[in-house]
Amino acid sequence: MIVRHPGLTPTRSRAVIHDGLVFTVAVSPDPAPPGVYEQAQRALQRIDESLAMSGTDKSRILSAIVYISDMEKKPELNRAWDEWVDRTNPPMRACLGVALEPPHLVEIVVTATQG
Amino acid sequence: MIVRHPGLTPTRSRAVIHDGLVFTVAVSPDPAPPGVYEQAQRALQRIDESLAMSGTDKSRILSAIVYISDMEKKPELNRAWDEWVDRTNPPMRACLGVALEPPHLVEIVVTATQG
Amino acid sequence: MIVRHPGLTPTRSRAVIHDGLVFTVAVSPDPAPPGVYEQAQRALQRIDESLAMSGTDKSRILSAIVYISDMEKKPELNRAWDEWVDRTNPPMRACLGVALEPPHLVEIVVTATQG
Repeated sequence: MIVRHPGLTPTRSRAVIHDGLVFTVAVSPDPAPPGVYEQAQRALQRIDESLAMSGTDKSRILSAIVYISDMEKKPELNRAWDEWVDRTNPPMRACLGVALEPPHLVEIVVTATQG
Repeated sequence: MIVRHPGLTPTRSRAVIHDGLVFTVAVSPDPAPPGVYEQAQRALQRIDESLAMSGTDKSRILSAIVYISDMEKKPELNRAWDEWVDRTNPPMRACLGVALEPPHLVEIVVTATQG
Repeated sequence: MIVRHPGLTPTRSRAVIHDGLVFTVAVSPDPAPPGVYEQAQRALQRIDESLAMSGTDKSRILSAIVYISDMEKKPELNRAWDEWVDRTNPPMRACLGVALEPPHLVEIVVTATQG
């Protein structure tokens, strides 16, 4: 069985769950604040919400791919990440500079487990 | 057991299946058409083919990461996506602007389940 | 149960294992050599090490996402990949041009299976 939590549009899900694995993605919800640190905080908050509605939490994240639109702002992303992460259960993480649709500066894709 | 479907070169697979999970990637096959919309249609068609040879279909996609070479063309990508997607079973999706090897404008990585 | 192998910082893991799936990421360890080919070789070597500490090896990789900072250097990446890959068990692979934090030119995310 596949469980899908609706996203902002009908053609995408914000979280999909199958066989104990949770796939979720988040950006900062509108209105997006102007800074990378603030957007990262809000995107991570939204990841928390998606994990909660999927029956899990950040202590059970396996992998996180973080996309930022300006690699020079990686220290701001890292600050939000380091404040947020469960340090006893750190995920694998990659941080990559890509083009995102304005006004988004941060997008985060997470794979977690329920059990 | 891992099942691998051969890709365009001997050093990569177009689809890999293990324990009910399917990992697949597609670009528009050659000759690649010049537009994002057309390339997205063909890449999605190729995803359909890879899912079929893996014993599944687009209704069972868990996650899709779409890479486009020009974020300003995201509306074209979205048009192809929205026409193609199974709206009763929408995947998690992220869309990111990256550099792709010309003439490719679109590349799509999908994780699906067989059962 | 989730097993985590510590990364370079306390807020990330270099490899995370759950239910037979292994998620791992690597860049070339410091000091990073100046060329894409050399960095790719070292990053792949580090993937080998992470897979070994996770009880598996490159013959059981399902998916690899390779990020390079200059798409024009993709032939160098391909050379290192083709020399390294298990040709009887090629993974699904995507290669994308993104911004990476200097001096890194190559970053590789791998999903593998233990059994």
